This record gives sequence, structure tokens and C-alpha cells, in this order.
Amino acid sequence: MPYRIGKYTLGFDQPPAVLSYAAVGSKKESEGPLKDAFDFIEQDSYFGEKSWERAESRIQRESVNRALEKGNFDPTDIDYIFAGDLLNQCISSVYGLRELGIPLFGLYGACSTMAESLSIASVFIDSQAAKRCAAVTSSHFCSAERQFRFPLEYAGQRTPTSQWTVTGGGAAIVGIGNKPPFVRGITTGTIEDYGIKDANNMGAAMAPAASATISRFFKDTHMNPAQFDLILTGDLGYVGSGILLELLEREGLDIHRQHNDCGLLIFDREKQPDVQAGGSGCGCSGSVLCGHILPKLQRGDLKDVLFIATGALLSTTSVQQGETIPGIAHLVYLSSQAQDEAFPTRERASQFDGRKEKR
Amino acid sequence: MPYRIGKYTLGFDQPPAVLSYAAVGSKKESEGPLKDAFDFIEQDSYFGEKSWERAESRIQRESVNRALEKGNFDPTDIDYIFAGDLLNQCISSVYGLRELGIPLFGLYGACSTMAESLSIASVFIDSQAAKRCAAVTSSHFCSAERQFRFPLEYAGQRTPTSQWTVTGGGAAIVGIGNKPPFVRGITTGTIEDYGIKDANNMGAAMAPAASATISRFFKDTHMNPAQFDLILTGDLGYVGSGILLELLEREGLDIHRQHNDCGLLIFDREKQPDVQAGGSGCGCSGSVLCGHILPKLQRGDLKDVLFIATGALLSTTSVQQGETIPGIAHLVYLSSQAQDEAFPTRERASQFDGRKEKR
Repeated sequence: MPYRIGKYTLGFDQPPAVLSYAAVGSKKESEGPLKDAFDFIEQDSYFGEKSWERAESRIQRESVNRALEKGNFDPTDIDYIFAGDLLNQCISSVYGLRELGIPLFGLYGACSTMAESLSIASVFIDSQAAKRCAAVTSSHFCSAERQFRFPLEYAGQRTPTSQWTVTGGGAAIVGIGNKPPFVRGITTGTIEDYGIKDANNMGAAMAPAASATISRFFKDTHMNPAQFDLILTGDLGYVGSGILLELLEREGLDIHRQHNDCGLLIFDREKQPDVQAGGSGCGCSGSVLCGHILPKLQRGDLKDVLFIATGALLSTTSVQQGETIPGIAHLVYLSSQAQDEAFPTRERASQFDGRKEKR
Repeated sequence: MPYRIGKYTLGFDQPPAVLSYAAVGSKKESEGPLKDAFDFIEQDSYFGEKSWERAESRIQRESVNRALEKGNFDPTDIDYIFAGDLLNQCISSVYGLRELGIPLFGLYGACSTMAESLSIASVFIDSQAAKRCAAVTSSHFCSAERQFRFPLEYAGQRTPTSQWTVTGGGAAIVGIGNKPPFVRGITTGTIEDYGIKDANNMGAAMAPAASATISRFFKDTHMNPAQFDLILTGDLGYVGSGILLELLEREGLDIHRQHNDCGLLIFDREKQPDVQAGGSGCGCSGSVLCGHILPKLQRGDLKDVLFIATGALLSTTSVQQGETIPGIAHLVYLSSQAQDEAFPTRERASQFDGRKEKR
């Protein structure tokens, strides 16, 4: 069963295992450093469909279907699917997952969706509410540009702080198992708002949320950054990553040795300069996690990873109305081991100074 | 801990209690049959804010704050908040809940959000992942019309099958308690698509989803409609309700004595004829549940209620691209008793013929 560690963090008595996973990408992703990480690459941005929105649905469907296949699962083996995306009313998830017949909890966490879906799925598994859950998300450069920015035909200039929405997706099947990777714990984010209003600088809008969540994880667990191989944010990009490191330093947390960012891993900013500050979109952290990180945890090449997917909570309407852009970041602690000394057990967590409970 | 009953349903060993709740409405809601059900009514559709979107954020904030106040809770007493709304990228939830500082899981379930949020919150409570969770949603006639249909200034004609988006919201605080109402179980919906393409006939688009979820609940639990005082859908309206009864009859389920619909309860279609087929929007089932149904369960005026919130999964883009409108419906079984003979216990559920499990 899940148990509380401090105010924001949950541990799992029987850490859920990631039983299977898959990542999908498109042309630009196939030209980047992670080109070999994808289970399926489609060079055509339409994915053979008649619209970019349908293409994105296809990405989500392919991600789930390939994760099912790789794990030798039927859709009927999955009790719940947790899914969301960036499109208005999450239509990629709706049309992408419609035929599966799996009970669906639709999520909206912007680019934090991969961590949000993994978080809730893990609670369902460790509480025995489900035997197996799927967590999935997607994004598409063209459907996102059309919706959030300009028609592609307009060929607008992109600012140096802007990020390139990944055309891709990731799906993970979580359940009970004795092989890594394991989900050891989660730290759930609050809405953080530092007053950023530039819709072309998402990294800056999301960095405070990542900083808050990471710092709470360390405070809750009494752990320190050196105990992790990788602290992976997604998708702060170049600008947001710099801000994150600075914000954490002010709190006395130095993560620069462990830190990397999905938006910096998926593209090569020198060879692919039009991505500007790096990758973004639900599919960025989704595909980097499911294509690049989970395999390394499975093989033991990585042992302890904090995965912190970040979301910028804006809409075109909120931007046009002059609202600020708040961010949110959800953390998932993934490990190649189901147990060790470092992460607080239920017993040890209960000895920490928790908040005072009134009833 | 949660336990599985059949393929789609969960029961709870220690049924979570709804510790507090509140409903918010506006002018049209105050002229309807449930005018006394609201904790807060604001006649001004702007709620004193400068945009309808801000007004809707205000609805969500008021709903949560009043539920907290009525239960004598601080925001720090709440471990997680589950929230969503109809606006693009769920901005009512983002701006409405920003100041609370409560860890947020953002949801998108269209008008099924009240049941979706209650469902996940209940799993978190019964699994001890949380002591208290909030579930909240909202909608606003003006922000919804602007986003999904026409500018209000256009004064478009509404078709007889159209429904009137409720300007309102509802919030419930779920936790461990020994006073009713209790959440006894949940049945989680799948995406159902009967090929409806008329964006002015949401009832027809959602009725198949409601039918599927209700029929699965009865199949999973081996119960029958006569064991319930009320089977409350939201928001099928007049047209969708008729379709639902017919679809269920074909499966041998007669619920016409127990059935009512949030969209039919909140407005008087004779005295308020411009609502056409009835109310809709996340705030319809949200405010009817939290303002009208939960108090009756608390007092014992209602004993056993199936609450099935329904969502139409469309966006303006999907409609313009000629896609069909799928629906989803999530069921929450609410009761004035924490236990009785009728609902399957963990032990009895394990004796039912479950699906064959492969591992």
C-alpha cells in the first residue's frame, strides 16, 4: 500500500514495476541523438492520416499498442488507462484510444502528463485497485503550433527561448512484477506561478514548479542528489534548465552533476538549431522516458532516476487575456531496485517529523 | 483497500466518506427548481471579474473554499485535489486553484469530471495514499458558448436538442469518516462512440456511454435497479435520457422508476424553455451532486444513489474535421450506509466468475 513520506511524497510498500513500454517519434526525432530509442518512427508528419490531429491520435495508439505487444498483453489485460495530451479537450487521447475498450481516466497536466499518469497508475497498482495500468501521452509539432501559435504556412520566426514540440509519444504498462524498472515513490506538484507572461518562454514558466517539486522530494525523503544517477526534468530546455539549477542552488541543492532535461536530450541544439532552446510537448518527456530511460533502468545502466515532467498551464485564451503562465511538475522516482536502504521505508517515514495533523 | 468486483467495478473495504461539499451557481440556476441547493449564488455572470474565464475560475475557487469552510478544513489539510473543466487546457482549474497550494492532479473528462475526480479521490483515500482529497469541477455558460459554439453577441438560434451549460460548480472533500455519505464503489467508463456528429445533440452522444457503464455496474455487482433510490445521470438532458432508457431496456434493464438526470433537475424546461433539452456542463452534475444529492444522502432522505456523470469528448477542431463525438461515463455509488448486504463485499466479489487472468 502507498504510504506518506512528509507532506508531498508517497512511497510504495510493493513498488509497481514498469512491465512494458514503447516510444514513437517522427522525422525530426529520428535525426536527433536518441534516434535509436524509438520503437516506431514515421517520417511522414501526417502518419498516413488526413490531419495532424489524427496523426497525433495515431501516435498515441501506436505507443500503447507497441507497449502492449512488447509485454505480450491484450487490451483486456489492462484495468485502466491514464492518458492526456496538449490538444483542446485532449482529443488525441480520445480518438487514439477509442478502440481499445480500456476504462479511461482522462488527464490534463500539459507536458507533465507522463509523470502524472505514471503517478496515479502507480497508486492504483500498489493499492491493488488494478493489476495493470497503462500511462500514455503524446504531442505533435504541427497540431501544437496550429493550436497554440501560428499556422505553419505563416512561417513565423521563433525566439531563442522557444522550444520545439516533439512529434512523438510514450506509453508505459505498470503492474506487479519482480523485474526493473520499479516506481519507488512519487512527489506531486502544486501550481507555481512566478508571473511569466511570455508564451515563447515555457522553460522559465515551468522551472519554478520543477524546483519546488524537486526540493520537496529531498526534504520529504531526507535524501540528497548524490544518491541519484540522473535527475531528469522534462521539458525545461536550455533556458529553463539554467533557471532550475539556480533556483535550487539558492535552496542549497546542487544537482548540476545529476541533472539533464528531456528537451535537451532529444534534439541536438547545435546540429538542429531550429529547435532553439530544446524539445517540449507531452511527447518529449513521454518518448524520452519510454524510449531512452526505462530501457537503461531495466538493464541496470541506470540505478536511481528522478523523473520530473513539467507542464506549462496556459491556453491561447489565457495568454490573449494577459494572464500569467503557471507551471506544475510531478516527480516519479524510478529505480532498478525494488528496495534499498536509501529511500525511507514506511516505518522510517513514520518517524520523520510530519506535519501536525488535526482531526 | 480497493477490491475488484467484476471487470469494471471497484469496491472499498473502508468506504471513503464525503466530509464536506459545496455548490455554486449563477442567475439562471437561481431561477430553477434547485435554487435553494447552492451555497453561493452570484447573479452577475462575470462574478465581479473582468472575463468569463476568470469568472469560471472564481466559481471553482468558491466551490473549494466553501467546501473547506463548511468542513472546518484548511487547504493544508487536503493532500490532493483532483480537478478539471471544459475550457481549453483546463484553465478554470489552473487559475481557480492556483493559490491553494494543494498538490493537483489535473483531469479532463468533459462533463464526467465530477464522477472522475470523486472516483480517483476515493481510490486514494481507501488505499491510504491520502487522508483527505478534494474533487472539484466547474462550467460557465458564456465561456463555453464562446469556446465551443458562437460569440454570444451573434445571438444564434439554439436547436431543440441543445443543452444549456450550467454556470456553476461543485466541490467535495473526501476522507476517512463515519458519517454519510459514503462512496461505496466506482465503475469506470470506456470511450463509446455511436457515430453521432451533431455538436448540438450531446445527449445522444453521451447516452451510449451512460448505458454501457450502468449496465456494467449491474453485471459486475449482481445487483438490480430496484435496490437504488436514484440512478442519476448527468447531463443527458431530455433527449439523451430517453435514449438511455431505451438502450438499457434492450439489455433487459428497466431503470425508468429510479432514473433522473442532473440536466433535467437543475432547470425547469417549461418555465425556462431556452434551456431546450436541459442543463449540461461539468458544473451541472457538479453542482447538482454537491448541492442537492449529497445533503439528501447525509440526512438519509436518499439511501442508495448511483451517480453517473457523462462527458462528450469533442473539440471545435474535431467537429470541424468531421469526426464523430464519442462519450464517456463514470459511475460512483453513493450510500447513506458504509455497509449492507446488497453490495458485494471483497469476499463475495471474489466468488463471482471473474475474467480469466493470465499472468
